[in-house]
Amino acid sequence: MSRGVFISFEGGEGSGKSTQILRLAESLKSSGFQVVVCREPGGTPLGEAVRDLLLKIRKDPPAALTELLLLESSRSHLVQQVILPALKEGRIVLCDRYADASMAYQWGGRGLASDLVRNLNKTATGGLTPDRTVLLDMDPSEGRRRQGRAGMDTDRMESENLEFHSKVRCAYLSLAKEEPGRFIVVDAAQGIDQLAEEILRQVQPYCLERLTPSGKTFGKTEGGIHHAP
Amino acid sequence: MSRGVFISFEGGEGSGKSTQILRLAESLKSSGFQVVVCREPGGTPLGEAVRDLLLKIRKDPPAALTELLLLESSRSHLVQQVILPALKEGRIVLCDRYADASMAYQWGGRGLASDLVRNLNKTATGGLTPDRTVLLDMDPSEGRRRQGRAGMDTDRMESENLEFHSKVRCAYLSLAKEEPGRFIVVDAAQGIDQLAEEILRQVQPYCLERLTPSGKTFGKTEGGIHHAP
Repeated sequence: MSRGVFISFEGGEGSGKSTQILRLAESLKSSGFQVVVCREPGGTPLGEAVRDLLLKIRKDPPAALTELLLLESSRSHLVQQVILPALKEGRIVLCDRYADASMAYQWGGRGLASDLVRNLNKTATGGLTPDRTVLLDMDPSEGRRRQGRAGMDTDRMESENLEFHSKVRCAYLSLAKEEPGRFIVVDAAQGIDQLAEEILRQVQPYCLERLTPSGKTFGKTEGGIHHAP
Repeated sequence: MSRGVFISFEGGEGSGKSTQILRLAESLKSSGFQVVVCREPGGTPLGEAVRDLLLKIRKDPPAALTELLLLESSRSHLVQQVILPALKEGRIVLCDRYADASMAYQWGGRGLASDLVRNLNKTATGGLTPDRTVLLDMDPSEGRRRQGRAGMDTDRMESENLEFHSKVRCAYLSLAKEEPGRFIVVDAAQGIDQLAEEILRQVQPYCLERLTPSGKTFGKTEGGIHHAP
């Protein structure tokens, strides 16, 4: 049995997941928790190589099923190499996307069968499900506007059309409806500070319930936050 | 329904698969057939990138399940991009390793559950099975001796110990026993020319039964052989 807490962050492009993960990591750390931050696809050297394959390839792009299998390979590696060991050590793992992302993008967006995605998710993760999933909900056109303002290059997934991203959003919302106990849906259009406070308010009590902060220090991590890789 | 012929080549390291595939491709081509040669993992730009990840990575190597998922991603891409289109055009596809290789290496060698491998094979290939599978059977220590003589660098899979490669061989032989109609088991320790003749003798009648050579020319391929990628 794992003794840590596993929290995934989900949401469309430009919804501010990475910013909010860092904010939450900082807050939890100042409360004395040991935090590991990782992302998907990626989070390990092998996973980052798969990420490049998935997001940067424009020539010979993978079809939906190949895309899904690549994502699952990165996922299984991250679970084995990073998430399970950290949970075993009693840490809080904050992961930028996880299995729900394949439901949202490959089922919702690409139209693969939901059973296929669910089964592959289960195979790749060995059934490991987040304790809580923070869904940063936002209108895709607003997400796109924010990314444009930030002058970010778009990758292969981000450059899909608004119709695709609307389907992704709907899929996320339907997953959240199925599991209201696990999902924490927040309005990602609000200000960064306000959003960070709301997420902390919803997540911290659960962490306190499950873990004893500060007393337990497991190994040495820089300022209490360990980034993978 | 596919109108071509799909032949996979399987066997341990150093069993001479690539040499024999080229010899068979040449012979079938001189008989007027249109032949496509491909390999696994690889066979497409994306697949070759996955191949590099799988075989060359020494730091952060993938566990068995991750390895399998990576192989299946390359497999699904190859099926969609190369094998199915070629079969649709009535060509003969000669593929250096296919789904049986995952049974031999990831089930036989690595010890993953056979149902898991079978299910993922089915998912990735959409159930596409070779018409014939040529198994180049050889004692692994002989295969290793040949590779050493050829002065070849060993990749991550090849550098596994003899025990691993013996398990792979046993798995291949048990698969062949299960499907004697599909498998053609040949003794890979015999001379190259003799082996090439035996394979041609066993494969050509089936191709003639299924396809009309020379009359049908589909698109332009260099000298009748198309290499993928």
